[in-house]
Amino acid sequence: MMLRSECRSTPDLLPTHHYINHSVWLLVVLMLASHYVIYSQYILPMGARIEKLEASHDSCLKEVQRLITDEIDVYDADKTNSTDYALESSGATIVTTRCTKSYLEKNIQYSIDGLLPVFFTSNSPRVVIQPSMTPGECWSFAGSEGVLVVQLSRTIIPTAFTYEHIRKELTPDLHIDSAPRHFRVKSLKDANDREGLLLGEYDYDKDGRPLQQFKVQNPNPVPTRFIELLIQSNHGELQYTCLYRFRVHGNKY
Amino acid sequence: MMLRSECRSTPDLLPTHHYINHSVWLLVVLMLASHYVIYSQYILPMGARIEKLEASHDSCLKEVQRLITDEIDVYDADKTNSTDYALESSGATIVTTRCTKSYLEKNIQYSIDGLLPVFFTSNSPRVVIQPSMTPGECWSFAGSEGVLVVQLSRTIIPTAFTYEHIRKELTPDLHIDSAPRHFRVKSLKDANDREGLLLGEYDYDKDGRPLQQFKVQNPNPVPTRFIELLIQSNHGELQYTCLYRFRVHGNKY
Amino acid sequence: MMLRSECRSTPDLLPTHHYINHSVWLLVVLMLASHYVIYSQYILPMGARIEKLEASHDSCLKEVQRLITDEIDVYDADKTNSTDYALESSGATIVTTRCTKSYLEKNIQYSIDGLLPVFFTSNSPRVVIQPSMTPGECWSFAGSEGVLVVQLSRTIIPTAFTYEHIRKELTPDLHIDSAPRHFRVKSLKDANDREGLLLGEYDYDKDGRPLQQFKVQNPNPVPTRFIELLIQSNHGELQYTCLYRFRVHGNKY
Repeated sequence: MMLRSECRSTPDLLPTHHYINHSVWLLVVLMLASHYVIYSQYILPMGARIEKLEASHDSCLKEVQRLITDEIDVYDADKTNSTDYALESSGATIVTTRCTKSYLEKNIQYSIDGLLPVFFTSNSPRVVIQPSMTPGECWSFAGSEGVLVVQLSRTIIPTAFTYEHIRKELTPDLHIDSAPRHFRVKSLKDANDREGLLLGEYDYDKDGRPLQQFKVQNPNPVPTRFIELLIQSNHGELQYTCLYRFRVHGNKY
Repeated sequence: MMLRSECRSTPDLLPTHHYINHSVWLLVVLMLASHYVIYSQYILPMGARIEKLEASHDSCLKEVQRLITDEIDVYDADKTNSTDYALESSGATIVTTRCTKSYLEKNIQYSIDGLLPVFFTSNSPRVVIQPSMTPGECWSFAGSEGVLVVQLSRTIIPTAFTYEHIRKELTPDLHIDSAPRHFRVKSLKDANDREGLLLGEYDYDKDGRPLQQFKVQNPNPVPTRFIELLIQSNHGELQYTCLYRFRVHGNKY
Repeated sequence: MMLRSECRSTPDLLPTHHYINHSVWLLVVLMLASHYVIYSQYILPMGARIEKLEASHDSCLKEVQRLITDEIDVYDADKTNSTDYALESSGATIVTTRCTKSYLEKNIQYSIDGLLPVFFTSNSPRVVIQPSMTPGECWSFAGSEGVLVVQLSRTIIPTAFTYEHIRKELTPDLHIDSAPRHFRVKSLKDANDREGLLLGEYDYDKDGRPLQQFKVQNPNPVPTRFIELLIQSNHGELQYTCLYRFRVHGNKY
């Protein structure tokens, strides 16, 4: 009976034994599961995110290099990367300014120690279709209303116009009150066409970037070789308005 | 007794049982604690750092685009983004060079196949206040001492000067020994003021960047329209000194 | 015996007790090991990678700033950062075009409202060694074959040539058929040397970047002051070929 009692106590112990084993295995499994959860839930996705960051970091400098090159390319490409059909050196000309009166304040002669005399003439309207953007190299006309008719270098269907003014940081007074404000652009049949086809009415934002582009608003622009720019107001200067550079963009006809 | 013995053995087993339970629970708690420690100590902060990196990576290219645009804007803004009151096109003039002798070596005439004759004259001092920075387009004067008096485009309280020389990489000899070294800047009451008010004494570093800016050192600069530049030495060239471009910055008066 | 039986059951329990202890300690050790594995295998290396990313991110913007400045510096340095010994303003000249016939289509006079008359002459070959890259400011010659002999600003051992054409995006027709295609470069003993020493044969890729550099192919270039450029074909334009800018690079002799 003792043995039996022992025998009976053994079965009592054995499940305990098994229970221990079970617990241990359960715990080992739990531990592995926990390990796995940590690994698959947190570490694996974090690893992937780090890998992606590392890859994009490596490609980043290449991408940056490309961005820089692209920006400098656009800057080098007349700042717009599109043909300016109003550019004088390409064959465009100013055909008329419809009697807009140039502003002649600076028409004075200086001379340096008997060297070459220096004339400051009011710049001709041709500077408006030339690339120079040096402060002062603009066409000044009296008042705030003026007209410029450009014969383009070829016949195009106009799509956009660009007006570029000098930065206000570069002006002696740190403002560009003499910049054009409200203006219209028309396409003409020929230099003598007094009516024309309105292509759009625009505002040059004096607080925006120096170079601003304006899309043709007319839904049916016709092919043309003559573009009329009508300045209707400026940003506050009472005596004169300065025009720096006007570009005309379009599609070949 | 057997039963009792069993009963007594059972209490021996029961605490073991409890002990197992306790151990298991303790271990489960430990495991959860460990899991939690790993999660909160390592994974959570690492996740936050990755998130920050990802966010800054996304914003990085925007930031880079902004950096590029800003740099090109400054380059486009006469490389300084500040008004040059000595710029000829804005209305400034060279009023005198106080008899500084121009260096005339290049004053030779060429002609191409009967096309237009080409003159290489020593450039006039006016190139010093014009924007061109093409190699060779400088004002050369004999020796290493020279004077230039500029009438600014308006009366200002001067704050800084900029001298820009050609890069040595672009010169035929890969050095800029003919660049100015030590120089002074004065403000004058008028073109005939021979004394003037010293605004600063400076050195142009031939190993620095081509464009170098110099702040006014005089604590009490007065409003002026006349700036005198006195070159006192160059970087080693014995025959002549070349001046490329001099800018004057200041506040409106 | 009962006690003994109990005693005997106790040794049965005791190893169980120890077994539990062992299991617990084993599990605790396992847990610490698992914790350690997770920490050392995953978290530590990931932390290092994140740290590296963070460090490189911080240095990235500095690096980007440097890249931008470098690119603008090269752009500012005549786009090549190397001396152009063919640059007119540095003292180079076009000595002959060997009777290459300029193309005169644009030789027409316009005039604006009685203002200054505007002449569009075919540009002289001198524009090829001047820095302007404005659309239209090229030397046009009839057909697809032309010659240009440049007297360099000093005697050099030539190392490379650069030809730069206008971007096709800026031309009225969006193509550069009039750009030179196949060309040779020779060095001459003097302006009358009709034979010369071949330095290389090259192709300007009309789909490449506007500025293309060509290394001297001759393994033994001799010091020279005269470079002959022979255009042998263009990219398809039948009437004329346009030359924008040609640079000559080399080492001092």
